[in-house]
Amino acid sequence: MEIAVVVIGDELLIGQVVDTNSGDIARMVAPAGWTVRCVTTVHDDAAAIREAIDDAMSKADIVLTTGGLGPTKDDITKATLRDIFGGEMVLDRGVLNHVKDVFKRRGLNMNRLTESQAMVPDSCKVIHNELGTAPVMWFERDGKVLVSMPGVPFETRYAMRHEVLPRLLERFADRSVIEHRTLVLVDITESDLAERIASWEDSLPAHLHLAYLPQAGYIRLRIDGMGRDRGALCRELDEAVEWLCRNLNVHVLATEDSTPEQLLTGELKRLGRTFATAESCTGGNIAHRMTMLAGVSEVFQGGVVSYSNEVKAGVLGVDRSVIEANGAVSEQVASQMASGACRKLGADCAVATSGIAGPSGGSADKPVGMVCMAFAMPEGVHTETFRFPGDRGRVIDRASTMALIRMVQWLRKESVR
Amino acid sequence: MEIAVVVIGDELLIGQVVDTNSGDIARMVAPAGWTVRCVTTVHDDAAAIREAIDDAMSKADIVLTTGGLGPTKDDITKATLRDIFGGEMVLDRGVLNHVKDVFKRRGLNMNRLTESQAMVPDSCKVIHNELGTAPVMWFERDGKVLVSMPGVPFETRYAMRHEVLPRLLERFADRSVIEHRTLVLVDITESDLAERIASWEDSLPAHLHLAYLPQAGYIRLRIDGMGRDRGALCRELDEAVEWLCRNLNVHVLATEDSTPEQLLTGELKRLGRTFATAESCTGGNIAHRMTMLAGVSEVFQGGVVSYSNEVKAGVLGVDRSVIEANGAVSEQVASQMASGACRKLGADCAVATSGIAGPSGGSADKPVGMVCMAFAMPEGVHTETFRFPGDRGRVIDRASTMALIRMVQWLRKESVR
Repeated sequence: MEIAVVVIGDELLIGQVVDTNSGDIARMVAPAGWTVRCVTTVHDDAAAIREAIDDAMSKADIVLTTGGLGPTKDDITKATLRDIFGGEMVLDRGVLNHVKDVFKRRGLNMNRLTESQAMVPDSCKVIHNELGTAPVMWFERDGKVLVSMPGVPFETRYAMRHEVLPRLLERFADRSVIEHRTLVLVDITESDLAERIASWEDSLPAHLHLAYLPQAGYIRLRIDGMGRDRGALCRELDEAVEWLCRNLNVHVLATEDSTPEQLLTGELKRLGRTFATAESCTGGNIAHRMTMLAGVSEVFQGGVVSYSNEVKAGVLGVDRSVIEANGAVSEQVASQMASGACRKLGADCAVATSGIAGPSGGSADKPVGMVCMAFAMPEGVHTETFRFPGDRGRVIDRASTMALIRMVQWLRKESVR
Repeated sequence: MEIAVVVIGDELLIGQVVDTNSGDIARMVAPAGWTVRCVTTVHDDAAAIREAIDDAMSKADIVLTTGGLGPTKDDITKATLRDIFGGEMVLDRGVLNHVKDVFKRRGLNMNRLTESQAMVPDSCKVIHNELGTAPVMWFERDGKVLVSMPGVPFETRYAMRHEVLPRLLERFADRSVIEHRTLVLVDITESDLAERIASWEDSLPAHLHLAYLPQAGYIRLRIDGMGRDRGALCRELDEAVEWLCRNLNVHVLATEDSTPEQLLTGELKRLGRTFATAESCTGGNIAHRMTMLAGVSEVFQGGVVSYSNEVKAGVLGVDRSVIEANGAVSEQVASQMASGACRKLGADCAVATSGIAGPSGGSADKPVGMVCMAFAMPEGVHTETFRFPGDRGRVIDRASTMALIRMVQWLRKESVR
């Protein structure tokens, strides 16, 4: 089943708000084997809305619209829907009572604008919007369905999941099932990967499909499969994963859809080890990414952002003579930073970064983008020097990602010795 | 001038990636008085791309496409553009050399797929893509322009700002001048702000327009003006800024478009003071945001992410008895963390955060979202406790922003004493 999404709202087209509703919808319908064919974003303008909806109805069996229903502007969208599907505007008692209820609960006063939210074309079936005041409206014509939903993301998600999707599945359900597998691949470019698996990819049956999802510093490779028999489909997908693991071996960091920080946290918990960071050029970003994960305190002790040399020496205990002899951006200094972090922060393992994020500070010897890293573990300290492309933000981002990835790899290597 | 944007890529329609390019484009063209009329997102599918581009060309004078140009899939988009605009696929030496260069710098090997990136329809003018390997292509027909750009956001932003927009402005410029002023407002809600300035806003002439740009933790209020006489327009805008400063006084953090971290760095440089961080619940995000700014090393010494109590005591020198008596999440502990950061990291000023980012760890006394902060300066230490709404990510983000804002405010207060 193909879905066309129409996103309505000036705020989206002036770059004030980013549309996340269409992506939420796509992820919610995917398990049914349904796809979003296209997304059209238009202003709160009757002609533009009409044109987009007509076009969407011609292309797909299901049209979902989001937005254009706030109390200050919902006349345009609702009047346009009435023009398209016919009928008269009528007061819906159920909606009115719900709006009154919501306002009472929030301690707000109703005004004329909010009351008008209860006016709907009588050509639609009204669906309850538990979390907001704008009604969800279901229209049908020539076997096709259009559902108009509010634009506030948490309202849209809730209404879609609990009210709209169940009704759509009942109305259009077929028996297909969808399954995915995702691999996280490192130290390989998208084009090298594509070339290495080209003939295998070409030989895949039509109901299996590869999606290359490059991130900054790694690639997510997803295998999508559709079929009637979930068991058989899962076996096929698992075989595909096995083939990829066998043929891409060292490049496979994970066979699950996880971020490097999630993988590192998992590895640390598995080994019962604690972790700390000593960051110069990445400036706290590695610690930040670790601590965005709930429950990380089980393995994460903390970190030091040793931006100045005084902090490297004073807090982490790096030898001043080593800094002077090799420069702050050196594997020698990174190595002492990592060991110092383990010692001073009471951690089993630590990663350290020292580099030149730019835009200035580079030299012929140590150009912008050069980052020295060290990975300290009870088994020893490993160092490596990288060169990352891009501007300051990208160097910091890529270096942080690489530090997390390498830490995962070193933990695995050492722990199987 | 109206622009139609066509966003190309399967990854957008399966909800894997959120389109931020169209919003970036909208914000970049706004100063010229140009608007994005509509955005259409389609799969990497020749028929869908063709249809979307034909439709966009019929609606707008400028069509900008993003995406569909990666090495594994760019044949479809480029072949479709050749079908639409005519010509033959030819090898562009300039692009080939640039691709070779990029690969060499990154220490990667070229392969057939990456070489194919240099194939372009000879009906286009190739524009240099500084940050990536996919060429930017400029097509013209019947006085209309289509520019095909890569989809990776930082490449798109860079190409748009430095290559595409200047050429579009030259090609389509009218004589109107556009000027903006931006205020950064804090400790006020968007609706309170709108109410306080409603009658003044209504009295503004038609060529001045207010844009409310709420961020997480503050509001950017932009005044856009369009006219023929830049001098007169600037005077009008400056008068508007003056009126707002007079009437919103304490809520005005800045009369320039700066982030809290930029304002803090500016304030520190002005006062010749150095700065450090001691972060528990914000986990390094404040340090990360500071160090994303080039040249921050002049004032930023570094930071400690004291996630565990051992790090709070061992590295920052917080009294263990104070932690035991008040709990780690307390103004007393935050205060000692901030003072400790000044002392141990050799900084004049420091901010400390200790709180409960959630989702677990909350209690009736200290609920999720509660964050204690301390702001240490030579003049003394100030503390404050906040309660931030939302999930873990939002609490961390809001707390980091508030810490930066308060530090700016305290530095200003103390330095005028």
